[in-house]
Amino acid sequence: MRRVAIVGAGMTKFGERWEDSFRDLILEAGMQALQSANMKGDDIDALYGGTMAAGRLIGQEHITALIADYMGLNPIPATRVEAACASGGVALRSGYLAVASGHHNNVVVGGVEKMTDVSVSDATTALGGAGDQEWELFMGATFPALYALMARRHMHEFGTTEEQMAAVSVKNHANAAKNPYAQFQKEITIEQVMKSKVVASPLKVFDCSPITDGAAAVILAPLEEAKKYTDTPIEIVASTQASDTIALHGRDSLTSLKATRIAAEKAYKTANVTVKDIDVVEVHDCFSIAEIIATEDLGFFKKGEGGKAAEEGRTALNSDISVNTSGGLKGCGHPVGATGIKQAVEVVWQLTGKAGKRQVDNAEIGMTHNVGGSGATCVVHIMKRC
Amino acid sequence: MRRVAIVGAGMTKFGERWEDSFRDLILEAGMQALQSANMKGDDIDALYGGTMAAGRLIGQEHITALIADYMGLNPIPATRVEAACASGGVALRSGYLAVASGHHNNVVVGGVEKMTDVSVSDATTALGGAGDQEWELFMGATFPALYALMARRHMHEFGTTEEQMAAVSVKNHANAAKNPYAQFQKEITIEQVMKSKVVASPLKVFDCSPITDGAAAVILAPLEEAKKYTDTPIEIVASTQASDTIALHGRDSLTSLKATRIAAEKAYKTANVTVKDIDVVEVHDCFSIAEIIATEDLGFFKKGEGGKAAEEGRTALNSDISVNTSGGLKGCGHPVGATGIKQAVEVVWQLTGKAGKRQVDNAEIGMTHNVGGSGATCVVHIMKRC
Repeated sequence: MRRVAIVGAGMTKFGERWEDSFRDLILEAGMQALQSANMKGDDIDALYGGTMAAGRLIGQEHITALIADYMGLNPIPATRVEAACASGGVALRSGYLAVASGHHNNVVVGGVEKMTDVSVSDATTALGGAGDQEWELFMGATFPALYALMARRHMHEFGTTEEQMAAVSVKNHANAAKNPYAQFQKEITIEQVMKSKVVASPLKVFDCSPITDGAAAVILAPLEEAKKYTDTPIEIVASTQASDTIALHGRDSLTSLKATRIAAEKAYKTANVTVKDIDVVEVHDCFSIAEIIATEDLGFFKKGEGGKAAEEGRTALNSDISVNTSGGLKGCGHPVGATGIKQAVEVVWQLTGKAGKRQVDNAEIGMTHNVGGSGATCVVHIMKRC
Repeated sequence: MRRVAIVGAGMTKFGERWEDSFRDLILEAGMQALQSANMKGDDIDALYGGTMAAGRLIGQEHITALIADYMGLNPIPATRVEAACASGGVALRSGYLAVASGHHNNVVVGGVEKMTDVSVSDATTALGGAGDQEWELFMGATFPALYALMARRHMHEFGTTEEQMAAVSVKNHANAAKNPYAQFQKEITIEQVMKSKVVASPLKVFDCSPITDGAAAVILAPLEEAKKYTDTPIEIVASTQASDTIALHGRDSLTSLKATRIAAEKAYKTANVTVKDIDVVEVHDCFSIAEIIATEDLGFFKKGEGGKAAEEGRTALNSDISVNTSGGLKGCGHPVGATGIKQAVEVVWQLTGKAGKRQVDNAEIGMTHNVGGSGATCVVHIMKRC
């Protein structure tokens, strides 16, 4: 089993990219990643791509064939991976396994979603396919509704407040305002969140990640060859994935994601680090409550104390643990299939000192946490400066 | 890099399975595969699944999370792979890489598609997403139309006739009639094919694979541990994949798939065999012309001679080369994401002497050839009796 490094990273600006198509977006991110690795297309042996719902959003399946074609990468193997909102993270893990296995050397892994070609209502229905279509979506349980159930229960069990959830969004907008690639470039206040329209009580518009177009890409190479391409390779020291019931009603708990706990535990063990060693983490905050639950499940805070920690500023930039420096899904945007790769790009930029105004001091070890659906898939990566 | 074997295989009967849902189908195939490997769910470390268009056909994405849940396999990593009609083959290759990398030991790889929940027209549109949506489907070029262009050009360049194409379908129905898992259980005649309704000239209904529900699954394990599970492990001695332009108009030739040639060449080299060593092959005959082109591109016949070979019976059971003993996509059916795995199941059954009335004598080395779209993805596997 070979050791694997990230030697290049790139992403588009996230947002409502009305004038750019799916293929424009991935090309932009892919080319940026290639250039940052000082590579040409000929250097790439295989392509992995994460997209959730291109079939329903743009009428296109077989999207990595499209990407390989438009990036001029034929005839390399091109493989699409899908795990709902965790599509990017699972694609990264698939690329990682391809390099680790010795079958491929240099692999580009991209994530992309073009969501604004359909109505918000159609996008919400497409996203509902991440849960159990027959037992959840068909009955009317969209994703805001599912996460509202989790939020309500977290409030009931631990006294978490709506203001604490709002604090997550306020912090993520503050980080996004420092990130030129983020969809939202302005700060918001607790009061604004609290006064925003209710989507599914207790979740309001500003507790929810937006509909976003965007793409991100990273280049993987065997660690022993990484210095050929960059002076600052980032080793992937753990790549773990776990599953749970697809429907929320099948779980033991509404306030914790078992797949996150299992993937994280395995990741810490594989990387031989503890949660205290993590300097920067991108977690899956599709809703504000999701970030609170994630910071608990990953071990940054005790179960039930995530809301309080957010309120006290312990997850802000250069605090106890810098959470979602990119702005997270809430502030940076959430082009579903791209999110898992964007998380990796942000961590790479943090660990290589390229994060500009949102740079975490002396960041050496970073983590990404990408969730599919309401927690049926979770992927965790730990990355380290070499 | 570890050597990998198939230690279990199973599939549902293919057909119009009105009373069975997507989850019923994959459960049936998966359980059969597990039982044939004498394994329980606890023995499985990871799941890979191939499905093309569940989002549009049943409103469900995130399908391996669903499968892991319904098979009782949580919390193992569960990854969906998609490459249009090559989804199954690419999933098999992904599972192969996961075992070869040493990250997972026993892996179940499934393929499934539930196509009859929507109209044939909606299914055809969904399948159109395998090509270039913007430049082909949007302009009205469905898949029968694209393959009709290829057929017409093959006739023009090489004198291939409609009767030769019909001979492919006749042979595949003959094989299907010997396969209890096949959608079609009766033989047809050249005359019947020639008189069937034109879909896209020169292709008629009986030149086209049908709309099918079905699922198939195989279990992979490291070769050195394979005998723990079965007396007849089948080693995967080559697993190769290549890409080409997604749109037909981007290619040098309409009568040859470059991705097939590249994947096949690499497969023969990796497995250290020649085309003469192959005893049985499942090729991707989504249309009769596709089988003719495939048998040429894989090297069984010279370019332009595939039609004549089919007409002369050189691809029939126990002839020069036994092609599509399962009945192929035409006779056995084509539940898109399941097809690549079904091909592997058929080859495993042939190599282990379990193919009943359609058994090829002394089959030792087999091959599968799975194509996505009009040839933008091609996956080739070579398998060998241990």
